[in-house]
Amino acid sequence: MSEFNLDSAIRKIHDFPRAGILFYDITSILTDPQAFRYCIDSMCAMYEGKQIDAIACVEARGFVFAAPFAYRMGIPLILVRKKGKLPGKTREKKYNLEYGQDFVAIHESDITEGSRILLADDLIATGGTIKAAAELIEEMGGIVAGVFGVIGLPFLDYHKALPGYEIKTLITYDSE
Amino acid sequence: MSEFNLDSAIRKIHDFPRAGILFYDITSILTDPQAFRYCIDSMCAMYEGKQIDAIACVEARGFVFAAPFAYRMGIPLILVRKKGKLPGKTREKKYNLEYGQDFVAIHESDITEGSRILLADDLIATGGTIKAAAELIEEMGGIVAGVFGVIGLPFLDYHKALPGYEIKTLITYDSE
Repeated sequence: MSEFNLDSAIRKIHDFPRAGILFYDITSILTDPQAFRYCIDSMCAMYEGKQIDAIACVEARGFVFAAPFAYRMGIPLILVRKKGKLPGKTREKKYNLEYGQDFVAIHESDITEGSRILLADDLIATGGTIKAAAELIEEMGGIVAGVFGVIGLPFLDYHKALPGYEIKTLITYDSE
Repeated sequence: MSEFNLDSAIRKIHDFPRAGILFYDITSILTDPQAFRYCIDSMCAMYEGKQIDAIACVEARGFVFAAPFAYRMGIPLILVRKKGKLPGKTREKKYNLEYGQDFVAIHESDITEGSRILLADDLIATGGTIKAAAELIEEMGGIVAGVFGVIGLPFLDYHKALPGYEIKTLITYDSE
């Protein structure tokens, strides 16, 4: 695959969702077909030949990268959603936010005992949601075969939050 | 494309999100690679050769069908989201729900004057959200080149809510 300057396709937005936060916007990747193709093709190249039985992705931006990957690789796509969004019987996992708590949920029928699941999101920062999703997958009998984010912000310590997982990203940013 | 029994891949869940509603669950398509491939390949076959400059999709289940379509067709993917979710400068459109109101939002930078946009969601029922998204695209200078839903529930009158649009679906259900 030819090199591509992914950074140039990521819009940086100051003070979103609140003052002091520099937000890395992936929607500018989505509207750039060359950038989007680079991301999906790179993901596929990273995991081609690895034993991945399914991909799980976190609501909602994670969906847009995991769906073409699942389509191309011919593997099941598992949605990790907020509480109350999935219509079938779910298992849930509570996790802490900066203020308060939240839940991730997965359909019980979506995880097969011993299946190797790649867990994906658009961006990995503190790793809090990914950690809850990974633990939930394991509690349901699955194996987390890897963690993928298009963008990684390692200065927010996701490596500490996710020990023992193989974490791959297409681009990382340091603290400003 | 060989025929595929899509109905068999759609899980039917009674009383979700509330009593009396029969919910057509598309997550059982996503976890069935053959069904998911059938949906994406059918979408591509439907619009191959048509003049479609971009695909816009409604949060969040619409993302999972529109993203592989955009990837395969090599066109921009535009996210239509709820208010406050998109980080850049947006245009918004208010619409009525059964109880209360909601907003759809699109990034200003995502719609080019005169561009022909396919509007997609997983399921079209009353057509209320799709109508708001279509009108917003038009207000922003785009042309709605078609409306696509994997599932259509025509008994909920989306044809009346969306007059003048070419609406395509892969499967429709009648009232029970």
